[in-house]
Amino acid sequence: MYTYELVVRFNDCDALGHVNNATYYTFFEEARGELFRIFNPDLNIRNWNLIVASNACDFLREAVYAQKLTVLTWIGKIGGSSFVVEQALQDEQGNWVARGKATLLGFDFEHHQALPLSAEQRQQLEQHREGPVGVPALRS
Amino acid sequence: MYTYELVVRFNDCDALGHVNNATYYTFFEEARGELFRIFNPDLNIRNWNLIVASNACDFLREAVYAQKLTVLTWIGKIGGSSFVVEQALQDEQGNWVARGKATLLGFDFEHHQALPLSAEQRQQLEQHREGPVGVPALRS
Amino acid sequence: MYTYELVVRFNDCDALGHVNNATYYTFFEEARGELFRIFNPDLNIRNWNLIVASNACDFLREAVYAQKLTVLTWIGKIGGSSFVVEQALQDEQGNWVARGKATLLGFDFEHHQALPLSAEQRQQLEQHREGPVGVPALRS
Amino acid sequence: MYTYELVVRFNDCDALGHVNNATYYTFFEEARGELFRIFNPDLNIRNWNLIVASNACDFLREAVYAQKLTVLTWIGKIGGSSFVVEQALQDEQGNWVARGKATLLGFDFEHHQALPLSAEQRQQLEQHREGPVGVPALRS
Repeated sequence: MYTYELVVRFNDCDALGHVNNATYYTFFEEARGELFRIFNPDLNIRNWNLIVASNACDFLREAVYAQKLTVLTWIGKIGGSSFVVEQALQDEQGNWVARGKATLLGFDFEHHQALPLSAEQRQQLEQHREGPVGVPALRS
Repeated sequence: MYTYELVVRFNDCDALGHVNNATYYTFFEEARGELFRIFNPDLNIRNWNLIVASNACDFLREAVYAQKLTVLTWIGKIGGSSFVVEQALQDEQGNWVARGKATLLGFDFEHHQALPLSAEQRQQLEQHREGPVGVPALRS
Repeated sequence: MYTYELVVRFNDCDALGHVNNATYYTFFEEARGELFRIFNPDLNIRNWNLIVASNACDFLREAVYAQKLTVLTWIGKIGGSSFVVEQALQDEQGNWVARGKATLLGFDFEHHQALPLSAEQRQQLEQHREGPVGVPALRS
Repeated sequence: MYTYELVVRFNDCDALGHVNNATYYTFFEEARGELFRIFNPDLNIRNWNLIVASNACDFLREAVYAQKLTVLTWIGKIGGSSFVVEQALQDEQGNWVARGKATLLGFDFEHHQALPLSAEQRQQLEQHREGPVGVPALRS
């Protein structure tokens, strides 16, 4: 399980005074940084080889400017070219703020086609299968 | 069904040269503008009474800077306080670019509690139940 | 002079309920779309040849969600490789909402060096030298 | 002088593969967090009392995804209701990445009018007048 800490930016919030729903996906994307290194060790954008096929999020609590949050990230189902990233956002008191997932696909941007996961990639993903205790299930 | 047209901004795209996954949720949010007027006719943020409970998106095609896109929006399941907004993004050639949904909840921001949908709100939502022909189903 | 119309997005606003200061630069960037076509007719990002060297903005009035705004864009000083883009944001009542400028530099992203403006580019820029009547000067 | 460290987000970058010009203003805004506490100790958005009157930035080097950057912030001219915040962005090798400034205005959002700086606020601002050695001057 990967742990990623962040502080909410002023501009992450919308006119309702809380973090905008779209911004949670940016938080989740940032929290996948270490996971991305399995596929691209130096995070060089010119060699990028993953694409988001779909994602989803349940919003459980409002978050506000300057709040400290932690994203927990673990691996769900692993397929031939794709895998599911499970994620949850927690506040400093341990409350669940959001629960998300993203299906990522190995992708060759030059030829615009899916890339099968290598044995080594699978093995590294397998090491992050365990999620946090007590995390809520996704609603759908 | 609501129809909303947009042009992709330069800054809607990320380093992969395409619209970032989080930005699709912003496109879908913008496309709910007319729907928001059922709940808040002048879109005054001080009287806001809806909150996003969850959302999801399948990414079907890449979109790029300056591309013209159309968001189609229709209403799915209607509950006591919440309702599902179904959405799809289409390019100028009629290809499906993305397919999303959002569950919105009537919400009293002052007292931080759910608001039941009124009979009039339900009736107005019911007029937008029909979706586009041939739209793909959400993957999950 | 170029004229560009926009509608403020929900997520363009920050927790103060108005358009965030950084977002004005995105509005100005979008309003440069037609100007960009002088340098890159089909706006293909792979052939991009301009970079922002500096920019500035005076914020004159708050703007809010769903507000219709117009950006006026004209050309200031033209140098060897760079030129100044003058911009102003106006609301539907004709009030000045913001006043900005950006210095753009012809740029070869492959070799990371400045590109001199061609005679044809200069000539096209010259056709957009005139600004709007009554526009306020930049404060500094 | 305030020091603020950040890591560039994936979505801070645009299709040119570098941090978008507008995003630098978000970096500078985040780096004013401790400064904001002079005016609003708990950073509660409901009691906000500052507004950005104008800002500017020179872009000196490109920044990329996952790069670590430091923002240095110090106080320039102090007026009756407003003051200038000087800022500079530095990479891990000590190169200057950007140089910016913002004029902030004490502001009463309820009555929509400027607020004079108090003696205590001035005194606290005065403690942060010194900038970094060798920082480049703003171009204009």
